[in-house]
Amino acid sequence: MSQHVSDEVVAKDMGEIRSGPSSRRHGDTLPHIHKVGTPPKQTLFQEIKHSVVDTFFPDKPFEQFKDQTGGRKFLLGLQSLFPLFEWGRDYNLKKFRGDFISGLTIASLCIPQDIAYAKLANLEPQYALYTSFVCPLVYAFMGSSRDIAIGPVAVVSLLLGTMLTDEISDFKSHEYLRLAFTATFFAGVTQMALGVLRLGFLIDFLSHAAIVGFMAGAAITIALQQLKGFLGIKAFTKKTDIVSVLRSVFNEAHHGWNWETIVIGVAFLVFLLITKYIAKKNKKLFWVAAISPMISVIVSTFFVYITRADKKGVAIVRHVKKGVNPSSASEIFFSGKYLGPGIRVGVVAGMVALTEAVAIGRTFAAMKDYSLDGNKEMMAMGTMNIIGSLTSCYVATGSFSRSAVNYMAGCKTAVSNIVMSIVVLLTLLLITPLFKYTPNAVLASIIIAAVLGLVNIEAVILLWKIDKFDFVACMGAFFGVIFISVEIGLLIAVAISFAKILLQVTRPRTAVLGKLPGTTVYRNILQYPKATQINGMLIIRVDSAIYFSNSNYIKERILRWLADEAAQRTNGSSRIEYAIVEMSPVTDIDTSGIHAFEELYKTLQKRKIQLILANPGPIVMEKLHASKLADLIGEDKIFLTVADAVSTFGPKGEAVV
Amino acid sequence: MSQHVSDEVVAKDMGEIRSGPSSRRHGDTLPHIHKVGTPPKQTLFQEIKHSVVDTFFPDKPFEQFKDQTGGRKFLLGLQSLFPLFEWGRDYNLKKFRGDFISGLTIASLCIPQDIAYAKLANLEPQYALYTSFVCPLVYAFMGSSRDIAIGPVAVVSLLLGTMLTDEISDFKSHEYLRLAFTATFFAGVTQMALGVLRLGFLIDFLSHAAIVGFMAGAAITIALQQLKGFLGIKAFTKKTDIVSVLRSVFNEAHHGWNWETIVIGVAFLVFLLITKYIAKKNKKLFWVAAISPMISVIVSTFFVYITRADKKGVAIVRHVKKGVNPSSASEIFFSGKYLGPGIRVGVVAGMVALTEAVAIGRTFAAMKDYSLDGNKEMMAMGTMNIIGSLTSCYVATGSFSRSAVNYMAGCKTAVSNIVMSIVVLLTLLLITPLFKYTPNAVLASIIIAAVLGLVNIEAVILLWKIDKFDFVACMGAFFGVIFISVEIGLLIAVAISFAKILLQVTRPRTAVLGKLPGTTVYRNILQYPKATQINGMLIIRVDSAIYFSNSNYIKERILRWLADEAAQRTNGSSRIEYAIVEMSPVTDIDTSGIHAFEELYKTLQKRKIQLILANPGPIVMEKLHASKLADLIGEDKIFLTVADAVSTFGPKGEAVV
Repeated sequence: MSQHVSDEVVAKDMGEIRSGPSSRRHGDTLPHIHKVGTPPKQTLFQEIKHSVVDTFFPDKPFEQFKDQTGGRKFLLGLQSLFPLFEWGRDYNLKKFRGDFISGLTIASLCIPQDIAYAKLANLEPQYALYTSFVCPLVYAFMGSSRDIAIGPVAVVSLLLGTMLTDEISDFKSHEYLRLAFTATFFAGVTQMALGVLRLGFLIDFLSHAAIVGFMAGAAITIALQQLKGFLGIKAFTKKTDIVSVLRSVFNEAHHGWNWETIVIGVAFLVFLLITKYIAKKNKKLFWVAAISPMISVIVSTFFVYITRADKKGVAIVRHVKKGVNPSSASEIFFSGKYLGPGIRVGVVAGMVALTEAVAIGRTFAAMKDYSLDGNKEMMAMGTMNIIGSLTSCYVATGSFSRSAVNYMAGCKTAVSNIVMSIVVLLTLLLITPLFKYTPNAVLASIIIAAVLGLVNIEAVILLWKIDKFDFVACMGAFFGVIFISVEIGLLIAVAISFAKILLQVTRPRTAVLGKLPGTTVYRNILQYPKATQINGMLIIRVDSAIYFSNSNYIKERILRWLADEAAQRTNGSSRIEYAIVEMSPVTDIDTSGIHAFEELYKTLQKRKIQLILANPGPIVMEKLHASKLADLIGEDKIFLTVADAVSTFGPKGEAVV
Repeated sequence: MSQHVSDEVVAKDMGEIRSGPSSRRHGDTLPHIHKVGTPPKQTLFQEIKHSVVDTFFPDKPFEQFKDQTGGRKFLLGLQSLFPLFEWGRDYNLKKFRGDFISGLTIASLCIPQDIAYAKLANLEPQYALYTSFVCPLVYAFMGSSRDIAIGPVAVVSLLLGTMLTDEISDFKSHEYLRLAFTATFFAGVTQMALGVLRLGFLIDFLSHAAIVGFMAGAAITIALQQLKGFLGIKAFTKKTDIVSVLRSVFNEAHHGWNWETIVIGVAFLVFLLITKYIAKKNKKLFWVAAISPMISVIVSTFFVYITRADKKGVAIVRHVKKGVNPSSASEIFFSGKYLGPGIRVGVVAGMVALTEAVAIGRTFAAMKDYSLDGNKEMMAMGTMNIIGSLTSCYVATGSFSRSAVNYMAGCKTAVSNIVMSIVVLLTLLLITPLFKYTPNAVLASIIIAAVLGLVNIEAVILLWKIDKFDFVACMGAFFGVIFISVEIGLLIAVAISFAKILLQVTRPRTAVLGKLPGTTVYRNILQYPKATQINGMLIIRVDSAIYFSNSNYIKERILRWLADEAAQRTNGSSRIEYAIVEMSPVTDIDTSGIHAFEELYKTLQKRKIQLILANPGPIVMEKLHASKLADLIGEDKIFLTVADAVSTFGPKGEAVV
């Protein structure tokens, strides 16, 4: 039977350490209190159920439905699909005041941004306004975030624009518009599918570091694209990489940039950056930065209208269609040669949009301490984009800059999105013709000022300080985006993230443990130089579950530790007779792992070294028994703690090396 | 400053437990002996070097070159590239006797198998004999396994045959042969590249379970393919899935199977299976099974020659070209439309061949307790296949059945491969014309008898018993191979293996710990039902490194444990004031993980729960400091052990729930 630890063992051990070596024999007269536990065996069904539940339903979404009546179940189901019914019940006028003010503020920020972002997607301005009308409305009913501001965003617009142009280079054609709706539809389907199938964890595979790099790269790419509007260049490259763009800019230099355009652009960029700086210095003045784009648009439009600068070569918006969203259900490609590209672009755009929305949602949920249901959020996003694709919208998601303004303006619930949506509706119905004279240079300034916030230098410095591998992933994504293209940057980011995971599972860490003097605690001798090894024993901790991907490495690493230690310990101290493997961190083992341990056991047998296991977890114990490996190694070689194993087999008085 | 454990703490604690609650104040008068260690900070260069070395050179291949003279270094380098120079020095006559006998035995097994396996690759028989002449010779100089028997094998032959036929369906054409050499060349290049770049760990990604399923599926597919030769069917499907093959077999039934062929096939299959059974029952009679294929070939050939059964519809080999390998260097496609397919088929075949060879090598190395260098093995395999492709060979690897015979016949070194190679050479030079009258039915029987050993039912049962997920992977690969195709089966096997890894890193386990009565040991309360929780505290162990792929899950899982426990503990016991996170298994944390802990800390702050960390490892400690998270949480909240944290903040006398 197994050996056991007891308070007496520990106490006696320590007594001995203090009184020096004694001749007490170990492990024969100790009361056996605890043996290494094996949990009750589960049936196959229980096992599968447990594993499925933990993978797909870690948040126990059905818990609240238990033991409820039919009617109550229906109500709960409705509430869980439409969180509006949950928070709507105790909605009051005070909350509405907060939502109303923040709704107006984000609307004033959103309208000029929308007109600008539509250009990134190579679409006419009204499509972005349509998106800011329908999508926030849908989200308000289904979303669980209280702070997120929904609408078109710069990065997704750029991604959509470049990917769609790769398929149909003539972005003035009707096919291009139809493909945009198709991509939006499938972006929504992707997001909804991830939510319904509870595969939300897939977006966790895009690491924080990769996102930081990708966003910074996209921001710089977007800013560079604005040089067209900012400098008044007519023949501009369609590529997005920095080399093509700069070549385009300087080739046009001798044709003459348009100086009137540059004056307008620089003036308003300076104005926008100053308001941003003010808002950053004094958090209470956040509204200065929030309304400055709207002021820029109004002032510059008025100015151009008065001076008729458009006749002097200042490019203007020219036309924004008036009226509410037309239906686009019949425009989506459900067959034909554009179906495939539509799905591909949609899946990528949908995933990126989702990643951004979930990151924003989580940030603000943590700040206000409420919980965000990732899978529910995906269903809301998916529904919103599907409905959007039927009503002339393109891919919408949460905007970081507008969400921050929403939060600071004191929003309480998703009602602020409804307020914003109504303001956008009124704009569409009444004032869109007024944007005719808005100069493109101002829109370029608004975009540049907005995306600069996506370059998070402090975050990059922190990555460098904390984790060099993360820094490499970040830089890979960044340079991929600015030197090649947005998609390649994204691909690099995902590839590096995956490589890191694979590296982790193939090369887990192992550590040699020593005893902290005066305790029964065993710790890594590299971290604790005072920890001392036990004569004739080598204690190795394996720091990972043992799977096929690392079982051979772990076996060979243990053998190499033994060889290395045996070589070092030639000076007088006795040969290693016991190899204790501390299994606490080994949460699982598969058949390859069992085979590796079997081979390890046989190899050690040949070398006359005893294999001892300390503290295997519940699953490992079960598998050791199922495979009869526990019998092979011997139940008496499996201990509850390292201290226990050492006190049983260790040298008298625990002589140390 | 940090809190520390000391023997007095432990001793006092236990004293108290025995004497009941006392009024000692915790954590203020204890001598501070050990604090949580932070290892000396490494420079960036050291860090990268360490990580590269551990990933690519875990076996420290350059260790032996240290502090050696130039000449000695050269000799060691030569020995490491050609292990022959290492074991050759103490080679003697006694060893040669073992190698000679085993070499003869495997040659007698290999010649009939070769002629049969060539058919699986849709090649003429002499190419397999060429392969068995050149490849073992090259391997003998460079390989580090002493027991492996090199040559063509059934699974790789089948894989090559089906993949090549997908590219060029007319396998009698010269292009087909040229593509086979091209694929062999690139298989060798792939294997060598893996060895040189030290990417050998990539083959570990094909899990043991997936290989078991894939092999069994391939064996059944191969056996079914033999029905053509076995039943004497003329019009046979080119597909390999079980449905097409059985349809083919029964469609031909009314055309009449050839009964003479069936009699020959069944008779020799029964003979082969009986000898296999004898060998299995009595290990000393292994040679009975080893020479039975040769006997079958001789007897059946003689019989057909005497009776001229070939005139009655019994298909015979007809022609095996005499003479030694011709050069095929000019046959390889280095450009043109077949280069791409050649590379693709080569990479897949090379990886599968390598996986098989390394699995065999490891098995026998463990049985004789010598070490096998994976990367060196890959270089040997690669060189052997590259040279093979230039001398009219196709992909060779280690054969499991012949290696087992080699081992049992008492081989001592790779010289047995040289003996076999010479026997094959003599066969090529002298007796190939004699195989003219060998009936195909006997070859089919030999293949069926050989591949049945690849269906390892005990291994499947063990998979079922130990790990259900492994069983699913195994079945996925198995059914993929038999119902779809060999490549799809392989793809399924790899996909399931990857899915398992991803699952592991996204959903790591967490456990609530309790104190084993009468000890200071804290263990999973599910595994040890006697373990008791501490009043006002929740102790959670995180069982994985914390990376971007799981950081959010871990954070939310910890919060859910807190919510669940808080709900359960309403009955009288005080609210949870401390959340202790046991970090021993957390070997690493990245920036996403740091962010998640920061958010966790803030959320807990809002809920008035103190976050306490126990035993963070060296890397985690370094990153906690680099990110200032250690300052935020407070150095005095980071402990060496859970017991220490409990004794500092726990209730007087450690009241339990």
